[in-house]
Formats: sequence, structure tokens, C-alpha cells
Amino acid sequence: MTTPQFHDGLTVHTQSHDYPIIITETCNMAAEVAPYISGQQVLIVTNETVAPLYLQSLQEQLAAQFTVAVCVLKDGEQYKNQASINQIYDVLMTQHFNRDVTLIALGGGVVGDMTGFAAASFMRGVNFIQIPTTLLSQVDSSVGGKTGINHPQGKNMIGAFWQPQMVLADMSTLQTLPARELSAGLAEVIKYALIMDVDFLTWLEQNLLAMMALDLAVLGEAVKRCCQYKADIVAQDERESGIRAILNFGHTFGHVIETHEGYGNWLHGEAVAAGMIQAAELSQKLGWLSLDDVARTKRVLALANLPTTPPPIAVDNALDLMGHDKKVKQGQIRLILLKSLGDAVLTADFDEQMLIEVLSQHA
Amino acid sequence: MTTPQFHDGLTVHTQSHDYPIIITETCNMAAEVAPYISGQQVLIVTNETVAPLYLQSLQEQLAAQFTVAVCVLKDGEQYKNQASINQIYDVLMTQHFNRDVTLIALGGGVVGDMTGFAAASFMRGVNFIQIPTTLLSQVDSSVGGKTGINHPQGKNMIGAFWQPQMVLADMSTLQTLPARELSAGLAEVIKYALIMDVDFLTWLEQNLLAMMALDLAVLGEAVKRCCQYKADIVAQDERESGIRAILNFGHTFGHVIETHEGYGNWLHGEAVAAGMIQAAELSQKLGWLSLDDVARTKRVLALANLPTTPPPIAVDNALDLMGHDKKVKQGQIRLILLKSLGDAVLTADFDEQMLIEVLSQHA
Repeated sequence: MTTPQFHDGLTVHTQSHDYPIIITETCNMAAEVAPYISGQQVLIVTNETVAPLYLQSLQEQLAAQFTVAVCVLKDGEQYKNQASINQIYDVLMTQHFNRDVTLIALGGGVVGDMTGFAAASFMRGVNFIQIPTTLLSQVDSSVGGKTGINHPQGKNMIGAFWQPQMVLADMSTLQTLPARELSAGLAEVIKYALIMDVDFLTWLEQNLLAMMALDLAVLGEAVKRCCQYKADIVAQDERESGIRAILNFGHTFGHVIETHEGYGNWLHGEAVAAGMIQAAELSQKLGWLSLDDVARTKRVLALANLPTTPPPIAVDNALDLMGHDKKVKQGQIRLILLKSLGDAVLTADFDEQMLIEVLSQHA
Repeated sequence: MTTPQFHDGLTVHTQSHDYPIIITETCNMAAEVAPYISGQQVLIVTNETVAPLYLQSLQEQLAAQFTVAVCVLKDGEQYKNQASINQIYDVLMTQHFNRDVTLIALGGGVVGDMTGFAAASFMRGVNFIQIPTTLLSQVDSSVGGKTGINHPQGKNMIGAFWQPQMVLADMSTLQTLPARELSAGLAEVIKYALIMDVDFLTWLEQNLLAMMALDLAVLGEAVKRCCQYKADIVAQDERESGIRAILNFGHTFGHVIETHEGYGNWLHGEAVAAGMIQAAELSQKLGWLSLDDVARTKRVLALANLPTTPPPIAVDNALDLMGHDKKVKQGQIRLILLKSLGDAVLTADFDEQMLIEVLSQHA
């Protein structure tokens, strides 16, 4: 490799403890995580897709120092359920592991969310470490302590807030990530720009192509910025009683798409991309965004090879699916909308007719 | 009723929030809990035994003010599992309840532990209220925030620390409690005396018969004392990294009995009673207790109609079952033993041969 390798990071402050996010491209995972393992027992949780790429090296190196067990789950959002959590518990019990165990999540957001929830609930809480191997999980689910699984009737309905001991975001893992999933991760990157920082939106317009060409230094810079945005918000509002909700920009619309189409057919980031367009359209109807702002939002998402139009969904169906969303308070639909590019608010202060108009455009 | 009704209580301090334990005999549950329900949605979780006694009145009165749903679980430790938790989730989802819901646990420790874990994990955490209807749950599981379920391979292996908004201990519910279960609760009451306060042991020797004759004022006094002991310990060590472990006095031996005999054949309190005798016997072998102290311990437990001898269990079997206990750290068996009556310590500082001798006496 001719470019110099970087090693950077930041610290996340939470109510329970502070923890570091280390951003690197060294691909020496064991050396990075070992200092954060406090006991002798390690369970690596990964999935069938990631295991052949990174498991053997991590497992062998850690085994020199720790008792290491492995749990390989099936890959996919449809396996983000109680049965997979039970698989993790079963390995922990069979190994006679105890409260000193550290769980390591090696994989994307689904692996991270499930491993985190297993760690939160095994013996009422044990340590865990995140090694996110997708861009989406590097910029989103590995920061903030949200863990959980899906209920047959709704996404992420079961879970806990549980903070990791550290997060290792190794950019070199993005070299094995399918292009479609890289784009899905870029949706969340673009989300931070839309809700928090219009200057970052400009930076992305200039750097998205380099990121898609796997310039790891540029990717690392973007990941660091996104983690910092998220860490700042989580430090203010760990349990999402207030400002943290804006991180769900595009997600209420996106959940409708994911649920309607069946988990896994639209990637989460793809659904969020189309959902952000709908949220921008509603913001425009309220007079907060200009038509140019909406067009710019579509352009940057299209540049990242993301869908800018949701699939056709009947309005009644969409409204009904929104009724199950966790952002609903006292039966009223609340949405994260944009006052301007780079400035999001959580609000119920819109005419439902306007929401119906937006949904009708894509019904 | 000729005796004056009392209304008393205390405050529990925890890292997340403070909450009250209200001790009463008014049997007007709805009026007591309503001020602690913050949203409009209530789910009462109870079981088939308690429901016919107290559900209708509570449900009807709360329904005047809130949207009330009910989940009636099967009764018994063998139903303290994932399937029962899923029943609770299913009602919450079917009702379209959201983060504002308050769960009310109406029943004994099993109902409380499961309702608490469902509250801890539904939408990553919602409010809950405990209405313990057994003496055991009034003095033990309703204070301290331990929630959870059993794993097929071990008791209380899955769970969370999650604090209620309030606890209502209504002494009049003890009038419908079977005598055997009242005795099982007395085991935990006696436990507090043995680990924390020899003066309370003397008080119990004088008052146990009144408690067993259902003198509600005396029972209320005992419940208040026990909750205060536990609240003091929990305030010092919410997550059981240190002193809180002494609350498990008798429980490691007790877990062996419960697991060996099959959940439900020995009541938890009965197993703890026999376990406390074994812990006292080991303390005597270490020279910490006198033979008189052990005899006094047996006498007070016998006075409460509790077993003072464990069932026969092979030593190897018992040691193996101890290997699964959560109090085991780094493979070494640690036990809570008595330095003197009223003074417990968590220690691994004993000769394993002495433990084997104690186990052999009952093999």
C-alpha cells in the first residue's frame, strides 16, 4: 500500500462510562481490541458472510491470550430475532461463561445490535466490543448503545440501551463490502449532513466519488465526522427523550418501506434514503425547504447510487404502518423534518393532509 | 377491622432514579399506583392464581383513567421463560402500545421478574410498577431492580437491572397467600437478620408467630425493615459488584437444591432456608460461628415451618451445579458465609475440603 495508514479516533461520553472509537486501516483487530477485554473469556459473534473473511485471524490471535468461543449466525435482517439471541445464550451457557465474559460483535449492524442485546441481557449485563465491518454500522449502530432485535410485528421493538467497552472501525473491511451496501451506508452519512451540518453536505458532494472508489483515508475521515456528530447527540440525550430523535430522520418513512417490502428486500440505508426524500418533500410543503433544497437532496443521494423514490405503497397502508413506529407519542404521528438543510426538528406540527399528499405521490 | 390501618413506606435510591415503596393494608391498589403512571397506557401482567383475587378491581378502577390491557400468564417458576416474555410483548404489540406504556406486575416474584424484564426490553425500556402479592416478593424481588427469566440451563441467566417507578406492598394480599408460601417468604426475612442485624433476629424470634397468624401490622413492620436493609445495600452497590452479593446468602446452596429437585418442587424460600443452614455449617467449620449459633439458626427457621435439611444430593453433582452459579468468578467457588450472626462476607477463603464435608453431610 502506498498511502500511509492512519490511526485515529474519538471518545464517546455516556451515563454509564466513556469509551473510545478507534478508526484505523491496519486490519490487526486482535491487537486493537485486546486491551479492552477485562476477563479471560471471549465470545466472538459474527455471521456466515463475515466469518470467512475475518474470523479466523481474530480468533487465533485472541486465543493466545483468552478462552475464545465463537457463535456464527445466519446473515440477514430476517435473522435479527429471538432465535438468534438464544443461539448466543446457548453458547455462553454451554461454555460455562460467566459475568466476566466479553462479547465481540464482528459484522454489520444486525450482528452488532444482537450481540449488544445478548450482552445487555446475559446475567443482567456483560461487557461487549463492537467491530463494525460495514459503513452503515461504522457510522451509525456502533455508536450510541442502542441494541435489540425485531418483533414479528415491528422492527427493533425489543432491546436495551447498552454501551460497548470500545468500537473498532477498521476501514480496510470496507474493501470486502458489496458496492450496494457501501451505498446504503452512505445514506446514513448523508443523513448527518442533512440534519446537522450543511458544510458537511458540501464536503460530501466533493468527496462521495472518492469514498465509492474506496479511498480509505477519505472514508475514515467521513466515519470520524459521523461518529462525532452522533457521539455529541448521544452525550446530550442517551435515552432519546429529546434531541437524539433527529437521528431517525427519514427512518419513519423508511420503516414503512422496509416493513411493506419485507425486511431485506430494501436495504435499511436504501429505505432511509427514499424516506429522507419524503421527509424533505414534507418539509418543502411546510415552507421550510425550497424546491432547490429538495432537488439537491435527491442529487446527493443519487450520486451515492441510492434510490430517491419509494416503492408504491397505499396511503392507508403507510399511515397504519406509521402507527407502529416508536416515534409515535400519545397516538399522534411525529416526524423529523428539516427547518433548513443541516437543521432538523422533531415535530407533530404539520397538517396531516400534507403528509397524505406526500404519501400519495408515491402510492 | 378493629386494628387501625397503617400506611407507611420508604424511598429507594438508585443510579437511574429514586422510587417509593409504599406499605399499606388498604387494599385500594388503583388509588395507590395511579399517581405513578405517567402515560395513558397500562398493561397489567399477572398470573392465573392471582388474577381471580385482585385483577378485576384493579383493572376496572384503572380503566376509568387509562387504556388498560391485561396479560395473564401461567403460574409457576417453570413458566419464567422466554415464551412468557413473548406473551407480554405480543399483547403490547397487538395493543399498539408505545414508549409511554406503564407495565404493572401484579403477583409474586416470578411475575415481577418477568414483567420487569419485559419493561426493560420493550422498546429498549418503559416504565413499570410492582405490586408484590407474596411476602417473598415484598421483601426481596420487588426491591433492587433485578429482573429476568431462566435459561433452560440456569436460573435467572437472562435479564436486566431495571428499576420500577414505585412498589406497592399491600399486606392484605398476604391473607390469600398459602401458609407454605408465607413461610417461604419468612426465609428471606430471616436471611436479612442473619446477614445484617442480630437484633432483628431476636425481634423475629419474638414476632414470627404473630406474623404467621397474619398480624398485618407486624408483617408490615417486618417488610419495611427488610426493604430498608435491602434498599441500603442496593444504594451502595446497584450492580452487585461488591457488597450486594451478601443478599445471596444461602442462595448458592439453594440454587443447587432447586436445580437438582426441578424448579417448583422446592419453593425458592425453602431451598434458601436449607441453603442457609449449609452456609452456617460451613461458617462453623471455619470457626466463625459456634455450634450454638448454628442451632439457633436452625431453630428460627424451624419456627417458621421451614426445612432445615436439604434433600440428598451427591457431592460431585452439587459441586457441578455450583459451577453454573453467577457468583462464581474465574472458576473459583465463592460463597457468602457468616463471620458471626448478623455479619456476612463473600469469600473464596475456605478449604474446598470443608465445603465437601458440608455437602457430604447431606449427600
